[in-house]
Amino acid sequence: MRIGTLLHTTGAIVTFVGLFMVFPLVWALVYREGDALPLLWSLLITAGSGAAAWRFTPRPSEITVRESFAVVTFGWVGAALFGSLPFVLSGSIPSFTDAFFETMSGFTTTGASILTDIESLPHGVLFWRSLTHWLGGMGIIVLSLAILPVLGIGGMQLYKAEIPGPVAEKLAPRIGQTAKILWTVYALISAAETVALMLAGMNLFDALCHTFGTMATGGFSTKNASIAHYGGLVQWIIIVFMLVAGANFSLHYYALRGRFRNYWRSEEFRFYLVIILFGTLVLAADNLATIHPNLFVGLRASIFQAVSITTTTGFVTADFEKWSASAQFILLMFMFIGGCAGSTGGSVKVLRVMVLFKQGLAELKKLLHPRAVVPVRVDGRVVPPELALNILGFTFLYLFLFTLASIVMALLGLDLVSAIASVAATLGNVGPGLGSVGPTDNYAHVVPVGKWLLSFLMLLGRLEVYTVLVLFSRDFWRK
Amino acid sequence: MRIGTLLHTTGAIVTFVGLFMVFPLVWALVYREGDALPLLWSLLITAGSGAAAWRFTPRPSEITVRESFAVVTFGWVGAALFGSLPFVLSGSIPSFTDAFFETMSGFTTTGASILTDIESLPHGVLFWRSLTHWLGGMGIIVLSLAILPVLGIGGMQLYKAEIPGPVAEKLAPRIGQTAKILWTVYALISAAETVALMLAGMNLFDALCHTFGTMATGGFSTKNASIAHYGGLVQWIIIVFMLVAGANFSLHYYALRGRFRNYWRSEEFRFYLVIILFGTLVLAADNLATIHPNLFVGLRASIFQAVSITTTTGFVTADFEKWSASAQFILLMFMFIGGCAGSTGGSVKVLRVMVLFKQGLAELKKLLHPRAVVPVRVDGRVVPPELALNILGFTFLYLFLFTLASIVMALLGLDLVSAIASVAATLGNVGPGLGSVGPTDNYAHVVPVGKWLLSFLMLLGRLEVYTVLVLFSRDFWRK
Repeated sequence: MRIGTLLHTTGAIVTFVGLFMVFPLVWALVYREGDALPLLWSLLITAGSGAAAWRFTPRPSEITVRESFAVVTFGWVGAALFGSLPFVLSGSIPSFTDAFFETMSGFTTTGASILTDIESLPHGVLFWRSLTHWLGGMGIIVLSLAILPVLGIGGMQLYKAEIPGPVAEKLAPRIGQTAKILWTVYALISAAETVALMLAGMNLFDALCHTFGTMATGGFSTKNASIAHYGGLVQWIIIVFMLVAGANFSLHYYALRGRFRNYWRSEEFRFYLVIILFGTLVLAADNLATIHPNLFVGLRASIFQAVSITTTTGFVTADFEKWSASAQFILLMFMFIGGCAGSTGGSVKVLRVMVLFKQGLAELKKLLHPRAVVPVRVDGRVVPPELALNILGFTFLYLFLFTLASIVMALLGLDLVSAIASVAATLGNVGPGLGSVGPTDNYAHVVPVGKWLLSFLMLLGRLEVYTVLVLFSRDFWRK
Repeated sequence: MRIGTLLHTTGAIVTFVGLFMVFPLVWALVYREGDALPLLWSLLITAGSGAAAWRFTPRPSEITVRESFAVVTFGWVGAALFGSLPFVLSGSIPSFTDAFFETMSGFTTTGASILTDIESLPHGVLFWRSLTHWLGGMGIIVLSLAILPVLGIGGMQLYKAEIPGPVAEKLAPRIGQTAKILWTVYALISAAETVALMLAGMNLFDALCHTFGTMATGGFSTKNASIAHYGGLVQWIIIVFMLVAGANFSLHYYALRGRFRNYWRSEEFRFYLVIILFGTLVLAADNLATIHPNLFVGLRASIFQAVSITTTTGFVTADFEKWSASAQFILLMFMFIGGCAGSTGGSVKVLRVMVLFKQGLAELKKLLHPRAVVPVRVDGRVVPPELALNILGFTFLYLFLFTLASIVMALLGLDLVSAIASVAATLGNVGPGLGSVGPTDNYAHVVPVGKWLLSFLMLLGRLEVYTVLVLFSRDFWRK
């Protein structure tokens, strides 16, 4: 581990993040609510510090596998640290702990908030808050790979360390190209959503912010009531784009090139739709009987929440804490599934859940045919045992961390349901949980050490546990 | 699948179970509380029906792999059906649903009860209730294997279908011998506990019943207050024997032959002690601060509950629902660990959890050394990928069933925590859960369809999911 390399690359990433603060600065200048100067200062400090670190360290000739984990993790921590500046300097979130929580929640596309009155924030800061979602959604490092040549040296490693899902698909021979393709697709669909939301009556500012929240499966809204603030049309548009954001972006890439059939050919995509359909039906059956006597409204509320939680977006149109125990339990379980591999969704991922499910059924078959080889297939191809074991290891570590963190949150004073839900919702990058961190509540009341732990869980979840956890192994720092 | 074979073997098992009703009959004659005649009738009907089925069907020359799953499952269902008779005929539990629930809970060593006043039951019926624990603990089929030559034909298959844990260890060349050894060890340790409890002041009846509840990791007590009815000495004795019952019985076999070192050589046993130690310490830290100001009492209550839940016994000395949220969460998580492989404990089993944990860590190592082979070892031997995948499949199916059943229980009207805990406690063969099925409550208020579902979960849990689930696969009934 060469500290110089780490500073050089992290510096480049932080500079890059800092330059993006020019967009909220523009909004601040439009709305003139006193946040322009704080944003300018944030930009200068962030880009300046990053550039200094980059400038005064030697350019490495290569990045080792080991270093790539550190680069990605420190790049994200750096982005969240400097990304907190606009909140702190503008006085919108005076506490640094809170600001860091909010920024990490933004970049990791979690969408958990400590704000009690979102609408009181100046527009520039609000825009930055939503922009962190969009940058984190397809990946800060992947974006840097697409644009910064300096990171090209460790390309594939960095890409694999940041992109979600057990398999990192290469869409082009060179990793920089793959990164460009993914970000282009992401930007194109985002533009489509912004237009759609504006056609439905939103202004440009809100349309952009909600697009960022949707496409990144983030969940930050500019309204206190989240999407419940808007009417049915906006809700349906967001449902569709959440579904898109939770699917593998290489499928969208092929679709944009005219190969729509790939959607249906993807077993993971079908499994994803089946899960959401199942969730919607159970929620709807439940809701129609009790909360929403109007068939159409009840159905919309059910599908919205099923999609929002499964894709780990976390937008809210109904206070699902008032729903039945079974509905709440389904939503809690959905927090553990998440989006497809290669989507912007978090949590365990549909592909992993599907392989685990198939492996479970394969064992049943083996019982009946003890000497037969019963391979697990996805899309017709056999899943190699190493990959299945990797998925097994990942899922177990995920559940282990969930368990451990839930105990700590309970020790920090949260009740049982809130403790479990707060961890499931942050580790899974969902956002709102249940209990005291439910859809109409926020994370403001959590004690500081709890906020730091949850921030750490968000990072663990977004970088799929291993990339971060490996830094804590003794083996990592040896020699 | 030959129906004749099924009837023949199930008949033998049911007859065998029926004959065991002679012991409660003796106690009924001692106490003279009106349950002697119902017990006699139960014995005659059970043994008679079983014998008839056995007598009028042809003796099979062999039992196929497939048939062995059906024999074991139907053997257990038959035992629970006929085992309900003493409760129904004596009027102790007039509802058949309730009686079946109680009997299945007994045989599967779950210890979940629908009784609101245990002490009002006549002694004969109470003894039968506890005896079902003891018979189910080491396994009805394993006991039959040890004694009935008819089952020897399908020996190893039947043994593997009933014995808990991913690896069925053979202690002797012939499976009948292994079964005899296991039951002898089980009986010897049971005798030791009975003597210890009598020395601590219990009468023979209560000592036997509590021995059955302990050694089978069952949890039925003859007292309404469970073990809280007794003093510290009895509690400590039961802690020790619960620990013994949750360990692999082959280790006890070697210990009885003087090889005590095997305990410490077993990685699973060490892992099991570490888990319990961890649980005890966290519970104690929690309890000493709040509920039990007395250091000694608080420590005893903590270790008792940690051992009782981890081993899936379910005895209670404290109302742990009054404990903190973190304590309750730890107990809930412990319901998913269970005893060691080859113990009488239920749930996922320590060995499986340990392999999953090691697999998770191995993946971390692989990240750093992508080309290295990182095998997972237990007791110094490499765990083959097939076994790891089998454990993966099992654990996932277990969690999947848990999720599905929790949703159903919530739909049936239980609140979130009670729904989750009722399923975790029955599928894991623990007994008491949290919420409305907590340590001071019972399962009487659950609607009938919920009781049948939970009874089914107990069976699934005791036979480790696959043995029962395979009967529901289309493949099973083909050809």
